[in-house]
Amino acid sequence: MTVTSWVPVPAGSDFPVTNLPYGVFEPAGGPARVGVAIGEHVLDLAAVLDEETFAQPSLNTFMAQGRERWQQTRARVTDLLTDEAHRSEVEPALYRLGDVRLLLPFSVADYVDFYASEQHASNIGRMFRPDSPPLMPNWKHLPVGYHGRAGTVVASDTPIVRPSGQRKPPQAEAPMFGPSQRLDIEAEVGFVVGAGSDLGTAVSTEDFAEHVFGVCLVNDWSARDIQAWEYVPLGPFLGKSFATSVSPWIVPLEALQQARVSTPEQDPQPLPYLREKQPWGLDLDLEVSLNDEVIARPPFDALYWSPAQQLAHMTINGACLRTGDFYASGTVSGSEPDQRGSLIELSWNGENPLTLKDGSQRVFLADGDTVTIRATAPGAEGTRIGFGEVTGTIHPAREELS
Amino acid sequence: MTVTSWVPVPAGSDFPVTNLPYGVFEPAGGPARVGVAIGEHVLDLAAVLDEETFAQPSLNTFMAQGRERWQQTRARVTDLLTDEAHRSEVEPALYRLGDVRLLLPFSVADYVDFYASEQHASNIGRMFRPDSPPLMPNWKHLPVGYHGRAGTVVASDTPIVRPSGQRKPPQAEAPMFGPSQRLDIEAEVGFVVGAGSDLGTAVSTEDFAEHVFGVCLVNDWSARDIQAWEYVPLGPFLGKSFATSVSPWIVPLEALQQARVSTPEQDPQPLPYLREKQPWGLDLDLEVSLNDEVIARPPFDALYWSPAQQLAHMTINGACLRTGDFYASGTVSGSEPDQRGSLIELSWNGENPLTLKDGSQRVFLADGDTVTIRATAPGAEGTRIGFGEVTGTIHPAREELS
Repeated sequence: MTVTSWVPVPAGSDFPVTNLPYGVFEPAGGPARVGVAIGEHVLDLAAVLDEETFAQPSLNTFMAQGRERWQQTRARVTDLLTDEAHRSEVEPALYRLGDVRLLLPFSVADYVDFYASEQHASNIGRMFRPDSPPLMPNWKHLPVGYHGRAGTVVASDTPIVRPSGQRKPPQAEAPMFGPSQRLDIEAEVGFVVGAGSDLGTAVSTEDFAEHVFGVCLVNDWSARDIQAWEYVPLGPFLGKSFATSVSPWIVPLEALQQARVSTPEQDPQPLPYLREKQPWGLDLDLEVSLNDEVIARPPFDALYWSPAQQLAHMTINGACLRTGDFYASGTVSGSEPDQRGSLIELSWNGENPLTLKDGSQRVFLADGDTVTIRATAPGAEGTRIGFGEVTGTIHPAREELS
Repeated sequence: MTVTSWVPVPAGSDFPVTNLPYGVFEPAGGPARVGVAIGEHVLDLAAVLDEETFAQPSLNTFMAQGRERWQQTRARVTDLLTDEAHRSEVEPALYRLGDVRLLLPFSVADYVDFYASEQHASNIGRMFRPDSPPLMPNWKHLPVGYHGRAGTVVASDTPIVRPSGQRKPPQAEAPMFGPSQRLDIEAEVGFVVGAGSDLGTAVSTEDFAEHVFGVCLVNDWSARDIQAWEYVPLGPFLGKSFATSVSPWIVPLEALQQARVSTPEQDPQPLPYLREKQPWGLDLDLEVSLNDEVIARPPFDALYWSPAQQLAHMTINGACLRTGDFYASGTVSGSEPDQRGSLIELSWNGENPLTLKDGSQRVFLADGDTVTIRATAPGAEGTRIGFGEVTGTIHPAREELS
């Protein structure tokens, strides 16, 4: 059986009917509400399903309703979009994607950023601690992570103003103040928690799909010079907290069943609470573009710690989950030089600047640069599903802060 | 002129009419709403002022209205509670504190924890890096801080379940899993943001009082063994994220005008964005009790970085503020041994265990221990105002996580 929609879906579209990602859109003149992407359209769920749940400027109300409701809704939307009998009823609720504005799809509760790619963590270790083992002693025992700033998680295409702050080059006697000179990207994959958990309980790796609603793309912009000066001993703060961009579409976990793979072999074997009975690695192919030129293709299936392991670790101390909690994988890097998900790795800390097609070179981002991250994954029925994109353009630092 | 209330205020009460801190309370059978503490009572603001703003289970709606509204409200409440003419109208809206339940007073947006006490940072440095300078090179140039977990900021008196997690004693070959053996307190002072700011702008030290609504007490519970194993290189995570307790009353900045003092001399002079024209140090006297026995009296006026400097730093990269953003000072420690705000400092990492009056000894917290933090400050009219208390009792680790 091939599932096809009566809504035309162009070949190569990110949004065949086997995907059906959720987002929040604003039609011309209308208030924001929840929709599902299909081909080149978005379906207004408030119009065809349930006003109270979907006539909302965020997915949180729907996400809080839990997995059974997510499954029912997906089945119902699939039915509406594949059975011609619904066409006359549903067609008026379709908007062309080009005619609507896409917003941040959920209201962020807490934001956690992990560091789960062995290649990324090793690359950073080799660059900054050349005389030590590339990984810290804890790295293969637990998914290292930290809390980021939820209030500066922004929608795709939000302008990224170059941050100012303190930096101290190694040879300088004292720190100086000004716009970051080492503005970087981090290509990551994000996980959105729908159903919360109680304070004092832990969420096991097996309960991952009971809590996590879906997956999106993340660019965790990073000011390497600010970060390098501030981060000892309490971790990254202002070097990260100015902006984190997320893609407008949340791909439901259910659409990713065919993308599930085992993580790479974990040696040493992790402690019991981190073991997975069923694999939650994901075979996503990322693609990072700088000014419309592909500069990296990071493979997510190489990630050492799966998102289910990250969730189990995050709650093992009894920390509760809330609807809208959001966690990202950390920079996704593969083993090949063109699979690295940050400029600091791609340029090897400036030793090998990137040369773009226009002849210009980059070690870090220049004002006016646009970075776009895309990804695809195997979907049901032999389809390929996509995540849309997360994009952002660098604006100059504000003068009064220069 | 002496300002007194027609509501009886016992001598030594934390809540004379010169204080008027805000909280959220739940009367028997009634929904939660905003109130102001006066003596041994709480005044229901929804009943005497404005239903829409104060018949809410958090202060956020009121806090978002901005400083002018905060000032008007304080003036009006002062009038209601001091002018006998209002007595018959107001008296029915007074509840005895013993008859109501006090809740978490605000909905937390982002939570940031600083590390702003020189004595605390130096003590930690001396214990853990005896062969290096006690302070890191960045410490006197910027207020070091990191994001904590907003979703586990809890009301005073919430049970604190001993967290489980990974720890690795220095002599162990591999990490082990189980309940924390080094559960500690951190006596801190917290600042609650009322009025937000725009993404891409910085908030100057001079605009502190335009944004910060008030001040409360914080116990940032810490599992030192979990923290020690996890925190390199991205900072504290599960060692802190299981619980942060806050006091039920938010003392408005306006009640603390007489408590303002200069910070200790700052050498080297900080960069311009961190300089203060008007001092925002605060002369608060903290008192930490373990099982009703005072174990420390940390002085907040010794804090190196003022809360206005912390706010300016937190936003200098353009990070926006939201109503409900919350930041804490970090452990408050003075220069004397009995002025230290954590057990790891009070016991000097176990070298000098505390002996309690019942003859038992403590290096870290035992199950059943209750920790309470109180504070007072100079108020208007020669009064002494108090912060109430933040308290919490340690419950055993959950069996399935042991």
